[in-house]
Amino acid sequence: MYQLIDGKAISDQIKSEIAEEVKQLTANGGKQPHLAVIIVGHDGGSETYVAHKVKACEQVGFKSTRVAFDESVTEELLLAKIQEMNINSDIDGFIVQLPLPPHISEQKVIEAIDYRKDVDGFHPVNVGRMSIGLPCYVSATPSGIMELFRRYQIPTQGKNCVVIGRSNIVGKPVATLMMQKGNPGDATVTVCHSRTKNLKEICRNADIIIAALGSPEFLKEDMVKEGAVVVDVGTTRVPDTSSKTGTRLKGDVDFKQVAPHCSFITPVPGGVGPMTIISLLRNTLAAARKEIY
Amino acid sequence: MYQLIDGKAISDQIKSEIAEEVKQLTANGGKQPHLAVIIVGHDGGSETYVAHKVKACEQVGFKSTRVAFDESVTEELLLAKIQEMNINSDIDGFIVQLPLPPHISEQKVIEAIDYRKDVDGFHPVNVGRMSIGLPCYVSATPSGIMELFRRYQIPTQGKNCVVIGRSNIVGKPVATLMMQKGNPGDATVTVCHSRTKNLKEICRNADIIIAALGSPEFLKEDMVKEGAVVVDVGTTRVPDTSSKTGTRLKGDVDFKQVAPHCSFITPVPGGVGPMTIISLLRNTLAAARKEIY
Repeated sequence: MYQLIDGKAISDQIKSEIAEEVKQLTANGGKQPHLAVIIVGHDGGSETYVAHKVKACEQVGFKSTRVAFDESVTEELLLAKIQEMNINSDIDGFIVQLPLPPHISEQKVIEAIDYRKDVDGFHPVNVGRMSIGLPCYVSATPSGIMELFRRYQIPTQGKNCVVIGRSNIVGKPVATLMMQKGNPGDATVTVCHSRTKNLKEICRNADIIIAALGSPEFLKEDMVKEGAVVVDVGTTRVPDTSSKTGTRLKGDVDFKQVAPHCSFITPVPGGVGPMTIISLLRNTLAAARKEIY
Repeated sequence: MYQLIDGKAISDQIKSEIAEEVKQLTANGGKQPHLAVIIVGHDGGSETYVAHKVKACEQVGFKSTRVAFDESVTEELLLAKIQEMNINSDIDGFIVQLPLPPHISEQKVIEAIDYRKDVDGFHPVNVGRMSIGLPCYVSATPSGIMELFRRYQIPTQGKNCVVIGRSNIVGKPVATLMMQKGNPGDATVTVCHSRTKNLKEICRNADIIIAALGSPEFLKEDMVKEGAVVVDVGTTRVPDTSSKTGTRLKGDVDFKQVAPHCSFITPVPGGVGPMTIISLLRNTLAAARKEIY
C-alpha cells in the first residue's frame, strides 16, 4: 500500500513553524520580514498565485506589499520600480510574478533584481551558487520537492533518480540538488527529456521519479517499478465539465494507474504545489535575517 | 577499430583559426585581445599551466600579462589587484590560477572578479547563465569536451551519456551542457559519483562515458559496451621510474583495456587536456569583441 505525500499538511506545518520564528524574531527586536510582489496585467492564474502569496505572508506574520501594473506598462517603468525596491531597505525580498507581457524581457527583469533580494531564486547568481553548492536562494519548486523528501525521511542516497523534463525552473535545478552531497541528495540522477529514446526502460529502473514535463497523465503504470517513489510536478489545467470552474488540475502522472505500485507518491493537487509557497517564505525570512547575503 | 580523438591536433587547428581571427580583428582597427594571469606562490603544476597559457596567447597573437605574487601575499592585496584588473580597460579578461594558499578564500577571489572579465567561467553569474542556457563564459574543461564532440561530429542527440564525477568544474557543468538543447547536446544524461551503487551496470548502458572522477585507470573493459564513446578527463600524476621526470600522467580510463571496445576514445595525455586552453582563448577573444557582455 502506497503512502500519500501530503504537501498541504506539510506546508501548513512549516507555515506554523515559520510563524513561530517570526514571533521570536520580532519579540527579540528583529525586523518583521517584508515581501513585495509585483504583478503585471490581469492574468487569472497570476492573480490567484499572487493572492496566495500575500495570504501566506499574513499567515506567518510577514509584512507584504502588492504592486500592480497594467498590461501596458513599459519595460522601463517596470525596471525603475525594481530599482526602487532594490534600494528600499524596508523590503527584504521581492518577486515579479511571471509570465510578463511579450513586450517585456523576462530575463532582463530577472537580472535587474538585486540577487540579495531575489527570493524567487531566478537570478543567475542564485542559480550559479546553487549549482556550485553555495548558500543561496533556491527556487520554489525544487526547494519544495527537497523539503518533502526531508520531512518524509525518504532515503535518496545512492538511489537511481530519474527527472523527466529539463526546464530551468524545475528539471535542471532539482537534478542538481538530488545529485549533490547531502541528505536529501547523493542520488544517481538521470535527466530525461523530449529527445530521450528509451524513456520507459529508464523509468522502470528508477527508485525515484520526478515528473516535470507538463504533459497530463504522461507517466503510466508500465513505466514504474514496484516500490518506486513518484513526485508529480505537473499542473496542467484541462477542461472538466463536472467541475464548478469548468477545468481541473492534472499532473504528469496517471495517479490511478501508478499509485498502487508506489511506496510514496504525491497527489495533484495537494502534493508539490502547496510546497512552492514555503520556499518563498523561507527565503524571505532568511533575507530579513541576512542569513545568506 | 576505434578512432582516437586527437585533442592536440584539434587544439592546434583551433589556435590557427583564432590567430587568423585576431589578425582580421586588428587589421580592421579592433583591439588586440589581452589576457592577464595572476599566479600566487611557486607550485610547479601551476607555473607550468600559466606558462602554457602565456605561450598560447603568443601563438594566437594576444597580448598577455603575468602577475606573480609570493605565497605569503595577503588576501586583501590579492583582492586589490583583482579590483585593479576589473577596472583596467586594457585587460579584456583575466584569471587567477588555482589552487591558492589556504589563507586565501578561493571562492571570495572568484566572486571578486568582474563576471564580464571572468574568462575562466567560474563566477556564479557565468555558472548560472550556463545552467539557464544564456550566453556566458563556459569553463575550460566542459567547453573543451563539447568542442571535441563538435569537431569529430560525434552524435549526442538522444544518446545515453554517463558522467562519472560531480565536481563543480567538470562533472556538473558538462552534464548540463550535454543535456541542453543543441548539437552537441540533447543527450539523456546520468551523473554518477561516489554514492552510486550500480555504476558498472549504468556504464554498460552508456553510449557516451565522460570519466571525471580523478581515479587512475578506474574505467575497465567490463564497464563499457561495444561501440561506446569514451572521454577521459582524468589527469593524475603517478610515479613512473621509466619516465625522465619520475612521474607519468594517468587518466581515469584503463586505455589499453577499454579502447578496443570503443568507437571513439580520448587518450591521456593528448585528449581533453590540450583542449582546455582553447576555451580560455575563445573566451578572451569574445571578451575583446564584447560578444557576451
